[in-house]
Amino acid sequence: MMKWGREAQKRLQAIAEVSEPGPGVTRFPFTPEHSRARDMIAGWMTDAGMKVQLDTATTLIGRREGPKGAPTFLIGSHQDSVRSGGAYDGIMGIALGCLAVEKLAANHVDLPFAVEVLAFADEEGVRFPTALLGPRALAGTWDPAVLEMTDRADIRLADALDAAGGSSAALARLARAPGDVLGYLEAHIEQGPVLEVQDQAIGVVTGICGIERNTVTISGQTGHAGTVPMEMRADALVTAARLIADVEALARETEGVLATVGCIDCAPNVVNAIPSRCSLTIEIRSADDDARQSFSMRVIEVANKLAKDRSTPVALAKTYEQNASACDPRLVGKLHGAAKNLAPDAPLFPSGATHDASAMADLCPIAMLFVRCKGGISHSPDEYASAEDMGVAVEVMAGFLADL
Amino acid sequence: MMKWGREAQKRLQAIAEVSEPGPGVTRFPFTPEHSRARDMIAGWMTDAGMKVQLDTATTLIGRREGPKGAPTFLIGSHQDSVRSGGAYDGIMGIALGCLAVEKLAANHVDLPFAVEVLAFADEEGVRFPTALLGPRALAGTWDPAVLEMTDRADIRLADALDAAGGSSAALARLARAPGDVLGYLEAHIEQGPVLEVQDQAIGVVTGICGIERNTVTISGQTGHAGTVPMEMRADALVTAARLIADVEALARETEGVLATVGCIDCAPNVVNAIPSRCSLTIEIRSADDDARQSFSMRVIEVANKLAKDRSTPVALAKTYEQNASACDPRLVGKLHGAAKNLAPDAPLFPSGATHDASAMADLCPIAMLFVRCKGGISHSPDEYASAEDMGVAVEVMAGFLADL
Repeated sequence: MMKWGREAQKRLQAIAEVSEPGPGVTRFPFTPEHSRARDMIAGWMTDAGMKVQLDTATTLIGRREGPKGAPTFLIGSHQDSVRSGGAYDGIMGIALGCLAVEKLAANHVDLPFAVEVLAFADEEGVRFPTALLGPRALAGTWDPAVLEMTDRADIRLADALDAAGGSSAALARLARAPGDVLGYLEAHIEQGPVLEVQDQAIGVVTGICGIERNTVTISGQTGHAGTVPMEMRADALVTAARLIADVEALARETEGVLATVGCIDCAPNVVNAIPSRCSLTIEIRSADDDARQSFSMRVIEVANKLAKDRSTPVALAKTYEQNASACDPRLVGKLHGAAKNLAPDAPLFPSGATHDASAMADLCPIAMLFVRCKGGISHSPDEYASAEDMGVAVEVMAGFLADL
Repeated sequence: MMKWGREAQKRLQAIAEVSEPGPGVTRFPFTPEHSRARDMIAGWMTDAGMKVQLDTATTLIGRREGPKGAPTFLIGSHQDSVRSGGAYDGIMGIALGCLAVEKLAANHVDLPFAVEVLAFADEEGVRFPTALLGPRALAGTWDPAVLEMTDRADIRLADALDAAGGSSAALARLARAPGDVLGYLEAHIEQGPVLEVQDQAIGVVTGICGIERNTVTISGQTGHAGTVPMEMRADALVTAARLIADVEALARETEGVLATVGCIDCAPNVVNAIPSRCSLTIEIRSADDDARQSFSMRVIEVANKLAKDRSTPVALAKTYEQNASACDPRLVGKLHGAAKNLAPDAPLFPSGATHDASAMADLCPIAMLFVRCKGGISHSPDEYASAEDMGVAVEVMAGFLADL
């Protein structure tokens, strides 16, 4: 077990060097770093006995053939990182997938299906204001409009993709036939503290949370901080503060819902003026879309009541919404079963973060395995998963495939 | 009465044209606009029968002589404005002072003391990061260090003053002997809504509030908005929100104290990350320094309790403190008495804003008269006081002087 974990750690340290200069890992899609990473990943795939090819979305695919005409099981994750990110987010899922297949080959395990390991180009959406083109192309759900999006250097996504060995004109042909795909498995660091707090190496994901983002704008009346009596004020920031406190209290008492006010801006934002305008974001996540929507309705009620009580009109706009993607119960059961020896207490819980699996859910049954990460830290050079935990994950993934 | 009010309005409209280009009035100290305004004010003083001179702090002084050896009563305000300010803040007090003296002269009223009307250069502190040099020079409390301060064009205050007809080297000689000064009266727009709400033309000021400013920095722990359970969070913005709500509630239930959170800044301030750091300002004002300080202690207690309960350390630093200046009870009584015919219900209340009178309080007994302003609006081109209300103020000021 430790052999696979140590090998994963070695590979991840090596590929972490494939980065723009600066702290941590910065590897964006369709860049020279992406190409170098693909070369290294191709080596991992070859070591696992897989045949390597690049699809037109620049997803690198390692394929282990199965019996003639048999369907394919997919394992995948993304090669890219955020700016100054860590050595595990995304790339670990590719490394562990390759090692699981390599372990099956080493043990001469035959499977009644083919296996592909997919190294997607772009999940983080940092370079272009879009993401998940690779899995969406496989699911046939990609939006041709994204090809016209540009990065900060004004390079079109289509041009970047074509220059990196892809073919923007041929993306439509990537869609897989659902009948040919058995399912999709993704291993990812948890990016949260649950496994560490529960002292567990791995966790089995039950679904990927739906997300909605709302922008709230509160209108008050500015005035001199010394001349307007407290009871005559319409202070936009005080209303914002009450809303933030209420949203947090509501989320604490609502099972399975996370709510975060991440951004706040206040005007005129000077020490001696009553705030006239305050805007903030409310992000709500839940694996249960009904629970999320009912929470959202309660937030609107609270905001409207505050608006009335405090004479500060509140405008609320939903700026983004993405429904939850449930993991497939059968695959979840198989994954939990595969963990029963090495991690009998592995918890089952939803993923609050979005992953490539969210897009793959439109194509086939999905499953995800979380690996404990130190301090719950992610998107940081301090990101860390241990060789031991990654070794457990490789064993569980190989066992899962063997038992499917 | 309306004669004086109409004349005040006419003069204020005329001098409002003496401004940098742009909306409203922009007239900074020691500028060509300041010189032109002085010329116009000198005309007002001459019309009132006063002898005009410029002191070395560029305070324009109109003097009506009294009996030989008699002390002097001072009336004053400032000629400068904020950027894109209004036509009343500051300058109205000079205009009304001149008209009150002109009215006494017209009525051939003899006074047993001399009267001076003072047009101070700088109260707003917009051009240089200091203010009140004129009154502080009279009180002997000015700080020579301010002469080295520079404006945005890197011009030293001393050089600007000297170029505008002052003499930075001779400021020390301006200090008046307290025995020679009977008192100081300042008329100013209220800059708040109290008189309008109470339907009163004028109000009598009981004192000028003390002010303290605190910067609060709250340290939390960032994390992914989708992966950190609500109960494991240390969200700096949620703590800030609770503090803002508590400070406002506390101020509402504390008589005579105003508290304002005007500024807030949050990091990383992105939609999907738990805020790791939040800073805000808490400004507290009261005419009662003990009440202000005891309020401040309660804020510290609330902040420390929140810090502990929510695992978000809070650091609080007092960045500014200015004690209250009480108005002289005898002068307040005389002013209220002078108002008894024209404004029998004129309310008595403290000024939350600082004025030239704050600095003059170090030299002599002070009194202030507030004039109603439309909507409580100030520091804006929309600033407005009616001719009628200003007429009442001129009558009350003249009556006050006659009865002193």
